[in-house]
Amino acid sequence: MAKELTPRAENYSQWYNDLVVKADLAETSAVRGCMVIKPYGYAIWEKMQRVLDDMFKQTGHQNAYFPLFIPKSFFSREADHVKGFAKECAIVTHYRLKTNEAGNAVEVDPEAKLEEELIVRPTSETIIWNTYKNWIQSYRDLPILCNQWANVVRWEMRTRLFLRTAEFLWQEGHTAHETREEAEKEARTMLGVYADFAENYMAVPVIRGVKTANERFAGALDTYTIEALMQDGKALQSGTSHFLGQNFAKAFDVTFMGRDGKEDYVWATSWGVSTRLMGALIMAHSDDNGLVLPPKLAPIQVVIVPVYKNDEERKAVCEKGSEIANKLRSKGISVKLDDNDKKKPGWKFAEYELKGVPVRIAIGPRDLASGQAEVHRRDTLEKMQMSIDGIEDKIGTLLDEIQAGIFKKALAYRDSHITKVDSYEEFKKVLTEKGGFISAHWDGTTETEVKIKEETKATIRCIPIGNEKEEGTCIFSGRPSHERVLFAISY
Amino acid sequence: MAKELTPRAENYSQWYNDLVVKADLAETSAVRGCMVIKPYGYAIWEKMQRVLDDMFKQTGHQNAYFPLFIPKSFFSREADHVKGFAKECAIVTHYRLKTNEAGNAVEVDPEAKLEEELIVRPTSETIIWNTYKNWIQSYRDLPILCNQWANVVRWEMRTRLFLRTAEFLWQEGHTAHETREEAEKEARTMLGVYADFAENYMAVPVIRGVKTANERFAGALDTYTIEALMQDGKALQSGTSHFLGQNFAKAFDVTFMGRDGKEDYVWATSWGVSTRLMGALIMAHSDDNGLVLPPKLAPIQVVIVPVYKNDEERKAVCEKGSEIANKLRSKGISVKLDDNDKKKPGWKFAEYELKGVPVRIAIGPRDLASGQAEVHRRDTLEKMQMSIDGIEDKIGTLLDEIQAGIFKKALAYRDSHITKVDSYEEFKKVLTEKGGFISAHWDGTTETEVKIKEETKATIRCIPIGNEKEEGTCIFSGRPSHERVLFAISY
Repeated sequence: MAKELTPRAENYSQWYNDLVVKADLAETSAVRGCMVIKPYGYAIWEKMQRVLDDMFKQTGHQNAYFPLFIPKSFFSREADHVKGFAKECAIVTHYRLKTNEAGNAVEVDPEAKLEEELIVRPTSETIIWNTYKNWIQSYRDLPILCNQWANVVRWEMRTRLFLRTAEFLWQEGHTAHETREEAEKEARTMLGVYADFAENYMAVPVIRGVKTANERFAGALDTYTIEALMQDGKALQSGTSHFLGQNFAKAFDVTFMGRDGKEDYVWATSWGVSTRLMGALIMAHSDDNGLVLPPKLAPIQVVIVPVYKNDEERKAVCEKGSEIANKLRSKGISVKLDDNDKKKPGWKFAEYELKGVPVRIAIGPRDLASGQAEVHRRDTLEKMQMSIDGIEDKIGTLLDEIQAGIFKKALAYRDSHITKVDSYEEFKKVLTEKGGFISAHWDGTTETEVKIKEETKATIRCIPIGNEKEEGTCIFSGRPSHERVLFAISY
Repeated sequence: MAKELTPRAENYSQWYNDLVVKADLAETSAVRGCMVIKPYGYAIWEKMQRVLDDMFKQTGHQNAYFPLFIPKSFFSREADHVKGFAKECAIVTHYRLKTNEAGNAVEVDPEAKLEEELIVRPTSETIIWNTYKNWIQSYRDLPILCNQWANVVRWEMRTRLFLRTAEFLWQEGHTAHETREEAEKEARTMLGVYADFAENYMAVPVIRGVKTANERFAGALDTYTIEALMQDGKALQSGTSHFLGQNFAKAFDVTFMGRDGKEDYVWATSWGVSTRLMGALIMAHSDDNGLVLPPKLAPIQVVIVPVYKNDEERKAVCEKGSEIANKLRSKGISVKLDDNDKKKPGWKFAEYELKGVPVRIAIGPRDLASGQAEVHRRDTLEKMQMSIDGIEDKIGTLLDEIQAGIFKKALAYRDSHITKVDSYEEFKKVLTEKGGFISAHWDGTTETEVKIKEETKATIRCIPIGNEKEEGTCIFSGRPSHERVLFAISY
């Protein structure tokens, strides 16, 4: 079969690439590192956007839109930001093309050189704080709770569809506050929103934590993260929320008149998730037959495939299929009745398995007679007979079960892949043989963290929120430690 | 008052700029020609997006996403496209910054020069048709009906918020078809969708027509347009739909195996509307007090303003206000109860007039006693007393009346500003003294069209669809003509 996937056990990375392309989610483009998100992939992203957008609005945020370009000089304003960021990016230097002398092609017009180069935004803190300066005079103008849905560009050298691309789509929230406490609370609230979304919509369990100083966002005082675990035992950072302190306010001179009549710098947060979530969604649940989608984010929740041998049968089963489809739709379930006569049922079964449609209903002449239909669950590959009478309620319940089942399975996998180790030998052994998160004592220094990374490629994914205090010794340096942190190899 | 607008009669253009900024719709940014769309403006754009997106899906389209960047060489492929387009655009030449020698700023790394420059998309026909090449082998792969919501960049020298900016937001549909007829039908269908949206949601009457060869999109065989009239008598092209023939298929070598077993080039359309629609919406209806928004696109449809003298009264009217708000919300009406104690009712009245909220309900202690509330219509500025009992239904009806009333008013203005003229003298007189659309005979040549434009700045906006045939003589050349066309000065 042309659409067969490389099995995960053979080559996980190739399996992922096969799946993204063959399930029509995305493909590489003619522009190095930029992807084309195909309609089926984009439909999943749209569902994610809709849910997240509603969550942002329910927590008091509004959308806005800021420029794609950032003047080069803005990047020098916040010292840590430029150090940690902004080196690999797309730079606009000219603003006009002209026809060449031969008249058959265009070339850059050297006369049209910009006085100051523009950077295609890799993230928008600088341009947004430069804008907020004019929006904020007094504490009455605070808080500002803005989000934008946008494309950003980071000139990655090694790219992978959804996981790491030069251009990607994301949302970036940028908030401005009167007090440190309020900003810190906002950063944590948004981490909570992300965790809620990951677990209750994507069905991907996540660990909420704080990044070490070394892994912080450039310019942040604290970076909160949600970390998910993929089936190959690698971690995937799925969303981050940053408490930026007054760093960007100071860099862009954004002050406000406080309630006490004194001028102070504004406190800030920023937070974002991106099309990288698509990678997490795909890798967390899918199998060698293809995608497994949680019903809440599946563009098609139920596919109905008519099975017949002749035109008469076809008419009868399609009619019944259409009746079932309408019943399901009346319950808000999204259904596709695939009555395409050019494809065999077997081909359709494989196709919708590949595309991760949570439930398949096959209906043939015998089912009409018995008032039953064959229902197939994508996640467990189980088949069952279901009476057509009242099928809409039973399918509704089944979709809920699938949503919960997928999460439970991912949670069990994740929980069985958090391993406590107490020596560096053990650490390396688990890392190689089992993977997953490794809970170990660390001395709190960047030096140790960097050395462990150099030797093993493992990084500290986070210090979990609400982490238990426990005295111990650093697995690498032997120095005292007061809590365990989570290491992993990551995407 | 700080928020007073320049009256339209004094300076229409300044009135527009004042309004966009003071109603918090948008503002200029630190990047030349790029705008910041503020939350209130973006909320209107989001409502537009949602309605249009639903319409696109109802007509069988799916969303996808294609790269922001286009290789320079792609622009040379379609000869007409490059001639008419793609000259003023943002060009990416480098992909890395580095810290300067002093260590206090970043500069472009000369080592990181791209082999081929990338153009920030001014429109995406080229990159999309290069992608479609791999999607299409046979007639079974057709039609492809894709849309993308995206940002695009055209390096405009003279910019105006929403109407003409270097970066703007839009949607661009790109479809691929088996036959010429199907593609032509698609282009007309989408023109119909745009006209429906403009008239029934934006309440802006539009003329549907075809562009002359001279005004066609670069690379199109036919460009369909909807043309609206603003209050200053200028036309605004509000959406276009292009029948592209096989031009892009030929340029990117996109062929398919037909039903007859023969290879042929694919037929194409593209169509788009942009944040320019925001400009049309603002200019078509608003007055010297501020915005006038059609209820279907207003982020807040009803504002409730409590009026009181002391805390006791405040409590009572706010309670009643909240009760009314809930009643209205139960009917799907979006309501804001503005109980901010720091602002006076008079200030709030002016603020919501400026922001174009269609209905204002003021409620004070006397209203509580009488069971009535004062209802104010933004479009006509009329006040009326309304019984609170059953107010949700009456307000629902009122919102419909306002939607219809705004359209009717704009239609009456537009219809009274289509003037038939039969001489060039008359043409120039009407253009200067009255403005609006001028219906006149034209000899069908680009030469005449260009000369009229040079002398008067008026362009042919379109040849209306279903135009009446009428013999006459061209107002400029005196040559024979078979139909009138519509001229206007345009944005």
